[in-house]
Order: sequence, then structure tokens, then C-alpha cells
Amino acid sequence: MSGPVVYDRVALIGLGLIASSMFWAIKRGGLVGEVTGYARSQETRETARRIGLCDRVCNSAAEAVEGADLIVLCVPVGAMGGVAEEIAPVLKSGATVSDVGSVKRSVINAVAPHLPDDVHFVPAHPLAGTEHSGPESGFAELYDNRWCILVPAEADTDPEAVSRLRALWEGMGANVDEMDADHHDLVLAVTSHAPHLIAYTMVGVADHLRRVTESEVIKYSAAGFRDFTRIAASDPTMWRDVFLNNKEATLDILGRFTEELFVLQRAIRMGDGDHLYEYFNRTRAIRRGIIEAGQDTEAPNFGRSAKKP
Amino acid sequence: MSGPVVYDRVALIGLGLIASSMFWAIKRGGLVGEVTGYARSQETRETARRIGLCDRVCNSAAEAVEGADLIVLCVPVGAMGGVAEEIAPVLKSGATVSDVGSVKRSVINAVAPHLPDDVHFVPAHPLAGTEHSGPESGFAELYDNRWCILVPAEADTDPEAVSRLRALWEGMGANVDEMDADHHDLVLAVTSHAPHLIAYTMVGVADHLRRVTESEVIKYSAAGFRDFTRIAASDPTMWRDVFLNNKEATLDILGRFTEELFVLQRAIRMGDGDHLYEYFNRTRAIRRGIIEAGQDTEAPNFGRSAKKP
Repeated sequence: MSGPVVYDRVALIGLGLIASSMFWAIKRGGLVGEVTGYARSQETRETARRIGLCDRVCNSAAEAVEGADLIVLCVPVGAMGGVAEEIAPVLKSGATVSDVGSVKRSVINAVAPHLPDDVHFVPAHPLAGTEHSGPESGFAELYDNRWCILVPAEADTDPEAVSRLRALWEGMGANVDEMDADHHDLVLAVTSHAPHLIAYTMVGVADHLRRVTESEVIKYSAAGFRDFTRIAASDPTMWRDVFLNNKEATLDILGRFTEELFVLQRAIRMGDGDHLYEYFNRTRAIRRGIIEAGQDTEAPNFGRSAKKP
Repeated sequence: MSGPVVYDRVALIGLGLIASSMFWAIKRGGLVGEVTGYARSQETRETARRIGLCDRVCNSAAEAVEGADLIVLCVPVGAMGGVAEEIAPVLKSGATVSDVGSVKRSVINAVAPHLPDDVHFVPAHPLAGTEHSGPESGFAELYDNRWCILVPAEADTDPEAVSRLRALWEGMGANVDEMDADHHDLVLAVTSHAPHLIAYTMVGVADHLRRVTESEVIKYSAAGFRDFTRIAASDPTMWRDVFLNNKEATLDILGRFTEELFVLQRAIRMGDGDHLYEYFNRTRAIRRGIIEAGQDTEAPNFGRSAKKP
């Protein structure tokens, strides 16, 4: 895959899983002239230099941003506002600022006030990731056939700035959608934020249970539990910030979840097998839809093979 | 892999994912002289004959069981008692009866009263499966490096009968443990039953939500939700029976789960980021343990690749 250069200079602020995968996908597609990068941690910057992550790793956000046509904030949601404030004075006139945060309304509220009027702001959220984090966890294929949602902050955002960002994400392999910030936050509360909190909770319950040892939980995890542990191994700082910044939608969905769970618990207690069967049968249809939409593999157990250690 | 014959004749009653995987694993290891099979549904029996599942597919449970040295009940937990009653009159003296149910106390209570005194009863539970079901879903590798828990019904169960069943499961690739029925049911409530109910619930919530369309849930599922849908695609009859028959332990764990979830919800509502961070950080250790124990793959996203559909 290779096409015309979409931006001359792109700056990635924050060099974790998402930014490093962007860099490798950009290189694969030949999409950008020069990619600069910055991470707050010196260790991360040194790792990035060692593995060739970014064409140039800078020692300050301002240095990385200077002259960039696109600046992508790839830091935890809670850190976006601070970074925006820091880079605002050096933003080039006409540049586009974007981000990759899992929450959009609070990022817009935190970032927009700092940006000068002659800069375009096009928030984005690539729906892709793994349970691994850090500069060495990225890979060029992460966004292939995944969705990236663009959430232009205002109705009058420059269409040319939006379509150029769209071209970059499409060049990195993603399908691109546009959505309103509040709807984005609700959809993600359902498809991502609530499931993550639930997985963290279930793993925490297993960890606390004194009558079942940790070694038993680990040995016998293949019966279902291990899928929860994958989700619950994701980056804790990122997820803390997601929940603190998508509070209302997440609590709304968790409230519905608890209601449903109580109804099913009651059916178990009362021995209502018909209710359970119907419920379990209905949820299969969604799985089929996901496989038909190419968003997961049909191979049993995600195609995991059982290898002798 | 091939060793000495462990049993001359084995009968598999019920021909779904578990039984069909047992058959292919038995053949791979050359572990049994002849394997007979029976399923209540004529369609399943015809499918089995067509794909060569079992050396001989019989038209009644009694016919399949006649002369067998080992009889394995591979039907949903709620159907075990009825099958035991049906086959009791034709069981060979000295034969062993086993099962593969996900719940052990209620299976023992349902099956044991029907069995004659000259038959050994060694309940078992292989901790392996996929979201697929039916006679065509089995494969020889399902049990490789997975655990099978033997739960001898009584303290004076014949050690020779237990060790022979252990040899069969080891021959099929499994690691074998022994455990008391009540402890088994509690451990499985944590590692399997509660996670499955929670996954079913989350998928049900998404299905009910009117403000988010089903197509959005499906398109954007890669952000976490899709892992829940895999678990929630498992066989509904099997899972209905599991919950009805492991009621107390499952409700106990779900009660703990709800408590923990409420504490985390409160932390979100109050903006207690430290509590969230600590909780999310702790759960990572369990994931590492599972990977070190060879019970899951370290590859990101279970090694799923993102393929264009």
C-alpha cells in the first residue's frame, strides 16, 4: 500500500500503543513526509530512538510541534488539556490538531479553549487496541479494517481539514465515520467502557476470593475467565481517565447492566429456565453480525491454539 | 501421539462439541478399541454417520451402552439423570460411568441413585470448549494442555477405575486434577459460570439499548465488546442448565461481583482516580499468571489478525 503524501509534517505527542502503531502504519503507506515524536518520559524517548520509532524524537512537545501540519495528541484523556496549553503558542497557522482519546466531549472541552483561532481542531478516535501498551507494542496493521471515528468539534470545521485527516486514517487502513461527540461517548460506553469496567470487576472478584486460590483461578481460567483477564490487562492510566471523563454515559450503561443482571439472577434463583434460554439464545445473533461485519474472526476461541508451554 | 488401549469399548451419549472432540482425540491417540455413540436427535445421528464421528452410531442409548467399559454422559446437565435411568439396566458389571458436565454436585445427585452397585461412577469435567456447538464443531486438539477435573463421587471409589479414566484424559492431551464436588462448583462459578452470565448480560444490554443502534454496536465492537459476544454465543441449553444446577455458588459470586461493581461505580461518580488506578493495576498480575501457566496466548488480541472481509 502506498499513495500520495497526505501531510508534510506530523507530530505525535505521546508514544504508546496508538501513536507507535500510527507511525508504523504511516511508514507502510508512505503517507507523511516527516513524523516527529515526543513523550514526557525520558525512558520512552530513548526506547523510541532505539527502535526507530518516529523520524525524529524531540525533547519537548514544542520542538516536536514546531512547523507540523498535523499534531496528534496520543496521551491519556486526562492529560490532553495540559498538552494543548503547552503547545498552543508554537502551533503553525492553518495546522490541524487531532487526538486519539477514547472519550470525545471532555477532550473537546479540555483542548478547544487553548487553541488559537487559526488552527483546525478535528478530534478522532481509532477503535483499535490490544491489551499491551508502551512504545514497543505498536504495529502497522493495528488499524486495518478497524473504524476510526472523526468528531469535528464544531459544525463549521473546515471540510478540507476533516477530509485530509480522513485520508490519513484511510491510508493507515481504517474505515472512517463521523459522529457527534455525545453520541460517540454513549456508543463507546456500550461497546467499550462498560465492558472494560465489568471485566476489571470480575477479575478483581476472583483476586479477592479467599476460598478459591489464585493458582486455581489461573489454572482453570480457560473455562471463560481468561477472556476477561485480557481486557483487564489494558493500560490502567488510560482507563482511569476514560471512566473519569465519560462518567455519565458509563454510569448510565452500568445502571442498565445491573438491572439486567438482577433480572437474570432472579431467574436463576426462581429456576426460570425458559427466561434464561431465551435470553441466551438472543445474544447469539449479535455475534453473527460482528463476524459478518468482519470485526472478529469466526475461528473457535479466536483461533487460539492450545500449545504446550 | 499413540499409546496402549485404555478401554476396549467406550460409549459417548450425546454428540456435541465435547463428545465429538473426545472421539477425535481418542482416535488420534489410539486409546480405545471401539467407540459407540448415541444422540437423541436423529439429525445429529445422521450428521455423525456422515462425518465418521464414532465407530458406530446407535439408534438408542441402550444399544450404544451395551458391553461398554466406559460410558460418558455428554448431554446438558439437566438431562443427565434421565439418561442414567435409561441406561442403568444395560450397564455391564464393572463398567465405569462418567460425564463431562460443568456442574458436579447436582449431576452426582441426579445420576448416582440410578446406578447399580457393581458400576463405578467417576464424574469429570474437561475445562475446554469453544463458542461453537454440535457434532461438527469437535476437533482432536481441544483438550491439549487444558485441565480435566475428576470428581470421584465417593471416598471409596475404586482407585483403578479413577486411574484408568485419568489415563484416557491424559491420552487425549489433558492435564488431570482431582477435586471435591462442592469445591469444583465454587471454582467454576468464579472462572466460568459468573463470567458467562456477565457476558450474556452485557450483550443483552447492548441489544436492548434504543439510543444506540444494533449496527453501531456491531461496527464498533472491536473496542472490547466483541470478546463478550464470543462467550455469549455459547450453547444456550447447556448454559441454562449450568445456572439452574449451580445456583448457590453462582449467585454467591454474582453477589460479590455486584458489590465490587458498586464500589467502582461509586469511585467513578466521586472522581476517585487513585482507587480506579490501583484496582486496574492489580488485575494485570492475574493475566501474567495465566500466560505463564500456558492457559492463554501472549499475542495481542489473542493473536487475532485484522483481515479485510
